[in-house]
Amino acid sequence: MIRMNKRYEIELIGFDADDTLWENENIFHDAQKQISKVLENHNYNFNRELFNIEKKNLEYYGYGIKGFILSLIETSLKISNKKLDNQIIKEILDLGKKMLSKKVKVLPNIKTTLEALSKNYNLVLITKGDLLDQEKKIYSSELSKYFSYIEIVSHKNEKTYMKILEKYNIKPKNFLMIGNSLKSDVLPVTNIGGMSFYIPFELTWELEKVEVDQMSTNYVQLENISEILTRLKSLEI
Amino acid sequence: MIRMNKRYEIELIGFDADDTLWENENIFHDAQKQISKVLENHNYNFNRELFNIEKKNLEYYGYGIKGFILSLIETSLKISNKKLDNQIIKEILDLGKKMLSKKVKVLPNIKTTLEALSKNYNLVLITKGDLLDQEKKIYSSELSKYFSYIEIVSHKNEKTYMKILEKYNIKPKNFLMIGNSLKSDVLPVTNIGGMSFYIPFELTWELEKVEVDQMSTNYVQLENISEILTRLKSLEI
Repeated sequence: MIRMNKRYEIELIGFDADDTLWENENIFHDAQKQISKVLENHNYNFNRELFNIEKKNLEYYGYGIKGFILSLIETSLKISNKKLDNQIIKEILDLGKKMLSKKVKVLPNIKTTLEALSKNYNLVLITKGDLLDQEKKIYSSELSKYFSYIEIVSHKNEKTYMKILEKYNIKPKNFLMIGNSLKSDVLPVTNIGGMSFYIPFELTWELEKVEVDQMSTNYVQLENISEILTRLKSLEI
Repeated sequence: MIRMNKRYEIELIGFDADDTLWENENIFHDAQKQISKVLENHNYNFNRELFNIEKKNLEYYGYGIKGFILSLIETSLKISNKKLDNQIIKEILDLGKKMLSKKVKVLPNIKTTLEALSKNYNLVLITKGDLLDQEKKIYSSELSKYFSYIEIVSHKNEKTYMKILEKYNIKPKNFLMIGNSLKSDVLPVTNIGGMSFYIPFELTWELEKVEVDQMSTNYVQLENISEILTRLKSLEI
């Protein structure tokens, strides 16, 4: 966290979606807890194994619920030594569909903040995950009207952000990214010379966690999304 | 199939990817056959059931390999009356990863045709499926250099094409779409006033099949991609 001295001219503001605009991680968390509970009844313990399998499977499945469910099945098979009751697999599949049809819960103060910001800035929503699932969430959130552009991407790294900024003809120094993940929303943006507001969510997915020494300093940590407007003003003075 | 009398001025040419630029359906077909064979060894028969389950699951999973694998597991559980050996589920998961890492096989004459077309036209690749998987296939095909734009979408309907054309400021009558699916590449485009070249592939997925009476006439059926250049010239004279 630093005090900004430079004058910033922000021309485009990017928003992460999951756990920035609406709840997400707790849906995965609850699902994991539910299945882990079923399996622990069978004397299995699987959190660590799930993490390892998810990490290994990222290159195949990418981010999102479908990959999570496939990894959940793989983990359950492995941990049960392939003696898993078919009923549990059926429960995992059903859970996936329940997750995929869950109504989006927009976080507090999002609507008013986006409404205010969109009057003075172009906003771009940048999210990763399953294409169809993300589209459904954007639609059901009723927030798309505040965004000039929507980008659903497979990864959020430096290259992704560079490509998006090139597409809209924005220099990194005129770009501000807002999100809850240091790894996906903050570091790749500050690494290419952009600015970032980091707003942590109550839960962080294991695979989004980063070590402190990797951290750049060119970001501002906010407690709440409603601080964006005042922070932004202070940057631009 | 009709003879064109009007003069067409094509400004943008869209290409479908799966089974138009590269092989795809046979990968699903082979996987289905492989698992069906394993299950039939256990006296199960499942092609019809898989079709029904895939259709029902489309709203949750959308298109792509991950959804296919989840549906394959669901079908196998159902058809075995939840007495499926864990080893078969493991095999289905492995099969999915194998499908997801399969090297793309570009179809004959594609490269030269795209090369020639891209000199005179803007080309856009329009494909549906899993985001990461489609990106990987585009990359590994080495065909992306011929395309001005790439659009990975969740559905290919009239609305999708309208949105893409609006984005690039192209009128439907100046758009030509080329693909192997009447349902996804041909009809939605001719329905909005665009032109289409239909190039059937040796296999068509059950869910992409349409009834003859739904067919519009404003498309030209080609046997081979290499006919595109001459057909295009005859349209524009």
